[in-house]
Amino acid sequence: MRAVDIIRAKRDGDALSREAIDSFVSGVTDGSWPDYQIAALLMAIVLKGMTPVETAWLTDAMSRSGEHVNLDAIPGIKVGKHSTGGVGDKVSIVLAPLAAACGVVVPKMSGRGLGHTGGTLDKLESIPGFRVSLSLDEYRKMLAEIGCCLISQTETIAPADKALYALRDVTGTVESLPLIASSVMSKKLAEGSNALVLDVKCGRGAFMQRPSDARLLARSLVSIGTAAGVRTEAFITRMDVPLGRAVGNAVEIAECIEVLKGAGPADLTALVVRLATRMVRLAEKVATDEEAEARVRSALASGAALEKLRALIKGQGGDPAVVDDTSRLPAATSVHRLKAESSGCITALDALLVGRAAVALGAGRDKKGDAVDLAAGIMLLKKPGEAVSAGDTLMELRYNDGSRLNAAIALAAQAAVIGDKAPPEQGLVMGWVHDSGETLFVAGM
Amino acid sequence: MRAVDIIRAKRDGDALSREAIDSFVSGVTDGSWPDYQIAALLMAIVLKGMTPVETAWLTDAMSRSGEHVNLDAIPGIKVGKHSTGGVGDKVSIVLAPLAAACGVVVPKMSGRGLGHTGGTLDKLESIPGFRVSLSLDEYRKMLAEIGCCLISQTETIAPADKALYALRDVTGTVESLPLIASSVMSKKLAEGSNALVLDVKCGRGAFMQRPSDARLLARSLVSIGTAAGVRTEAFITRMDVPLGRAVGNAVEIAECIEVLKGAGPADLTALVVRLATRMVRLAEKVATDEEAEARVRSALASGAALEKLRALIKGQGGDPAVVDDTSRLPAATSVHRLKAESSGCITALDALLVGRAAVALGAGRDKKGDAVDLAAGIMLLKKPGEAVSAGDTLMELRYNDGSRLNAAIALAAQAAVIGDKAPPEQGLVMGWVHDSGETLFVAGM
Repeated sequence: MRAVDIIRAKRDGDALSREAIDSFVSGVTDGSWPDYQIAALLMAIVLKGMTPVETAWLTDAMSRSGEHVNLDAIPGIKVGKHSTGGVGDKVSIVLAPLAAACGVVVPKMSGRGLGHTGGTLDKLESIPGFRVSLSLDEYRKMLAEIGCCLISQTETIAPADKALYALRDVTGTVESLPLIASSVMSKKLAEGSNALVLDVKCGRGAFMQRPSDARLLARSLVSIGTAAGVRTEAFITRMDVPLGRAVGNAVEIAECIEVLKGAGPADLTALVVRLATRMVRLAEKVATDEEAEARVRSALASGAALEKLRALIKGQGGDPAVVDDTSRLPAATSVHRLKAESSGCITALDALLVGRAAVALGAGRDKKGDAVDLAAGIMLLKKPGEAVSAGDTLMELRYNDGSRLNAAIALAAQAAVIGDKAPPEQGLVMGWVHDSGETLFVAGM
Repeated sequence: MRAVDIIRAKRDGDALSREAIDSFVSGVTDGSWPDYQIAALLMAIVLKGMTPVETAWLTDAMSRSGEHVNLDAIPGIKVGKHSTGGVGDKVSIVLAPLAAACGVVVPKMSGRGLGHTGGTLDKLESIPGFRVSLSLDEYRKMLAEIGCCLISQTETIAPADKALYALRDVTGTVESLPLIASSVMSKKLAEGSNALVLDVKCGRGAFMQRPSDARLLARSLVSIGTAAGVRTEAFITRMDVPLGRAVGNAVEIAECIEVLKGAGPADLTALVVRLATRMVRLAEKVATDEEAEARVRSALASGAALEKLRALIKGQGGDPAVVDDTSRLPAATSVHRLKAESSGCITALDALLVGRAAVALGAGRDKKGDAVDLAAGIMLLKKPGEAVSAGDTLMELRYNDGSRLNAAIALAAQAAVIGDKAPPEQGLVMGWVHDSGETLFVAGM
């Protein structure tokens, strides 16, 4: 099957055969398709789309382009988790030990931050000694002994996706539902989970800004997982405002520890409990959501989840004492306090601007390979719905490199809006796409 | 201006700015745009189109990516000619000396055959000694002294088009009106003509099969030429049946000489006279088409056009004696006569199949760089409207390589259709797009 014929078929709006899709993915993986033919097909896919069946085939082929981890030797239903990325999104770092403390095995490979969103791996690396690059044998050992781990994707996982992603980034072919969905799921399906809970972020600080787009993505992800025989469900959660009060790396690890001690921000805690509840259900540990939630809350209250995080850190070579003493995490040398210019109530706190301000301070990357300042970050002292008086500190900008401060202030100062009255309270969870359909918590999605 | 932003703009259906188009063409020319970004933009152009203004800017930038020949030192209006390619299309080889014999200066760079269509350069190279690769100085000298020449495009003409064309061929991005039109016109505008007569072929043996597509292409070509200040007109001519009775290289040269001696096939002669008439008018040699046609017919009848061909051949290093003795052209060792299996009238003679049969005999190329057998070709003894009896020879397949014969017979045998009654007679010229609009000679275009 000639590459040019496959490209022409998609250009003309035809659905590709499984054979054509396999041929494309093989060509990407073994290098026999030159980049320009891959780029042409990617653009044709962006503009002509793919059916759910084509998308499932593409995902399967990408997933099988590298190692498919088999975790059958570890007893029980393995439940993975993935977030499409947001600002202050430290959920995995709390959720993995929490679900594991409830008896769920949680295989989890994570990514690095890019653009205004943070990455789980960068956050974890702020823990002294923590190793994110584990071998697949170490991965299996962590899961067998501790029940969870948080590692970077190994080089052997979905190499076709790595090659495609690098090309999509520079050819204007990122924005495509089938390409986004297949990229996410090809990696998840290779990680060895039997079930998946997905967190599709939606709003100003997310990749998907419109609820309708987030819903389509959630549906596509669930459909792909189901086609692959992995029980998959997706929550659509609000990402207009940063999650929690910490945005950065070390500052977010400290906040995760607070949540596991029962003293974390309400929004983050509520979301983690919700996701953990479904993971416990998908692992078939209990028969109802009520029982599952009770088990999750008990693991939090008893300190079992915190102990699981300690074991996870220790297992991956990190300093477990940070759990007791967060001052062992890297701290910034300087703090700039951004003050309220008027009195009233916070009506909005733009996640995108906060995320970009954190990157400006050095907490994230503008482009791949940039170094990250693990201590830099932003503490959000006032969040939407909270009252402020002129002169109150809205945010603390923590930094080491003074030359970065002005750019960060310029962004952060625009992020918070002070108005007369509190905005209506909104739950984080906007929708839930699951195997018996959809449950929408927000109208107009 | 970043490449990825230009790609994204076209992907989203925006019209590109002149600056963006210039940046793209510069990047293609100097190699600073990698192939994969070029390919992605090409596919976005195929699927999202370009406005006439964008197309004119693209053409201008491609045209100026290399040398722009200035022929101002040669007096008079220089009139170029281009055909989109067909089977048996030897028009340029007759037309250039014919128009030159009428006093028109005809700058003409031609191409090679690819696929089922023949190429003027291959045909000319069947004349012993004929050189198609002239320098620009030799080109100017031929035009100044003889008034015409038939050379290959120099490397310095529109290098951006060469780079784009090579990539389009392998990325499924050939079929795009703005890309086709800009490719044709970028080269024509660089050749130094002040006016252009275009021959847009339409039908089974042409690139454009549907009259509506041919008309859109003709309009686009004329619009680009006009925007560049070059008076341009386009004939849309039928290419369902091969032009003339010879298809190949040496066999077509012999037929050209016959036309210039007044003994050529009627269809070919009529078309050449029609195009030459407009070239004489565009060169402002006379005031009416009637006067122009009279001058053209006189140049044919007097032998002046034949003498001009002799001068052209001599000027480009070829053996001018072929004009008097076509047996000096290469001849095939063997002939296969394809016979009629029934009696009746030829109702169709498929140009595509005849073209492919000629390629199968070795007269053309399946892919760039293939060698061409200059002596191989097909003589069409019976054309549509002509009566045949069972056993009559329909075609002569002339060949040197016997291993090629069966494939050629299989194609050629399907090309001719014998029916009961003659098909309606159809003129070759279907439409004419000119500076005061369009004249359609055929309904339903």
